[in-house]
Amino acid sequence: MYSGPAVRIIVMTEIPKTHPRYESLVLREKLVEGFRSGIAAPQGLIAHGRGEMFYYLLGERTTKEARAACRAAAALLLQAERPVISVNGNVAALCPREIVRLAEAASARIEVGLFHRSDERVSMIRKCLEDNGAKGVLGFLPDARIPGLESMRGLCSKEGIYSADVVVIPLEDGDRAGALSKMGKKTIAVDLNPMSRTSRCATVTVVDEVTKALPEIVRSIEDLEDDPAGVKRALKAYDRDANLAAVMAVMSKNLGSL
Amino acid sequence: MYSGPAVRIIVMTEIPKTHPRYESLVLREKLVEGFRSGIAAPQGLIAHGRGEMFYYLLGERTTKEARAACRAAAALLLQAERPVISVNGNVAALCPREIVRLAEAASARIEVGLFHRSDERVSMIRKCLEDNGAKGVLGFLPDARIPGLESMRGLCSKEGIYSADVVVIPLEDGDRAGALSKMGKKTIAVDLNPMSRTSRCATVTVVDEVTKALPEIVRSIEDLEDDPAGVKRALKAYDRDANLAAVMAVMSKNLGSL
Repeated sequence: MYSGPAVRIIVMTEIPKTHPRYESLVLREKLVEGFRSGIAAPQGLIAHGRGEMFYYLLGERTTKEARAACRAAAALLLQAERPVISVNGNVAALCPREIVRLAEAASARIEVGLFHRSDERVSMIRKCLEDNGAKGVLGFLPDARIPGLESMRGLCSKEGIYSADVVVIPLEDGDRAGALSKMGKKTIAVDLNPMSRTSRCATVTVVDEVTKALPEIVRSIEDLEDDPAGVKRALKAYDRDANLAAVMAVMSKNLGSL
Repeated sequence: MYSGPAVRIIVMTEIPKTHPRYESLVLREKLVEGFRSGIAAPQGLIAHGRGEMFYYLLGERTTKEARAACRAAAALLLQAERPVISVNGNVAALCPREIVRLAEAASARIEVGLFHRSDERVSMIRKCLEDNGAKGVLGFLPDARIPGLESMRGLCSKEGIYSADVVVIPLEDGDRAGALSKMGKKTIAVDLNPMSRTSRCATVTVVDEVTKALPEIVRSIEDLEDDPAGVKRALKAYDRDANLAAVMAVMSKNLGSL
């Protein structure tokens, strides 16, 4: 999409499938691609690097804690009356298809919500989601404001995030996650850093790589959708802080043995 | 330097000095700036994010292990006959002045060595270093090859890295660090990941943020330069694997308490 020198001169990396970190490297290239097309911000690349590190500390695999959190997330979505999925540049670059599938499974609206907002980027992300089958994507013409966030960052849609009861916030900024919680919304974070403000303020926090977490939430929705008792059990069984502590213990143990 | 949409649309972040992670955020913006000017590669932004994470786990401060490693690094440089400092895009974006100061203190040559190499980027980095006072920067016209690396990545200068006895490799790629070790060179890594291949194959590994580590090495050179017994002691006292294990223990302890 653009031809500035910083991008033109980069040699694309060929990744052999036998590489032990193949999946992680493919994700990285996907994100660089999304960045080149203008969907992801440079700050998003740095944030992705932080995530990569935590994923590496997790052993690059889905933990049982992540699965339990996905089950609780599914239960929360099944109880929701107005669920909305907030999508930013990194999420759109990494897993537009998975977002659309989750929106379908959870009967949720999709809203583009950016920390580094511009109309141009919102519209590119909307197009990317629509190309992957999304309908009625919100966020292009914001008509409401999340209290407590400075002007551009607080913009949202009245019929979307503003009036939602449950908001899925994959790879969300801590300020924005905190402001949504303060509005009284239940939030479902997907975040690889178990210590981030986002992770510590969400109602349910899934500590896993986003392209793995979203399909797992969809599977849990399918499991639980005709099982109201199962929904209640999944929520009752989930304790965010205990879940995060267990994830940190996994990372701590891996530090030094990887 | 360029005006593609992915960059034009980004809102630059104003960071209040009171922010608990002010220094880390300033470094991030420096790197984004270096990326915009074409010095740093997109993959470099992601790598920086990984580093940020480890720095965060370190508590964003210099450990006594890092200081000991800087002392050993200084000792190695004082013993060197042909020391060379290898500079890549991230290093040039973050601390060109510190590189020049280290080169002066250690009487070392500076060579631009890129993983994602292009003549254009080498020349921009050379210019950035020269603007900060560097003289005789090598790497623009490579005339030798590091064995074991594929074509572009193995390029180096005969009078620089190729014939060096000690090479300083801040923020180095694991393949390149390994290949230099295999050539029999002593290497001084500056790397925030104590588990990286670079960290585990260098002669001396400083686990600290690069803009802190380089001035600390300069200070140690000043301390040790007229003290041959001190040089010997610093090298004898340094045990890379024990040092890395101690750093990992700090990180492991911080995981969960940050």
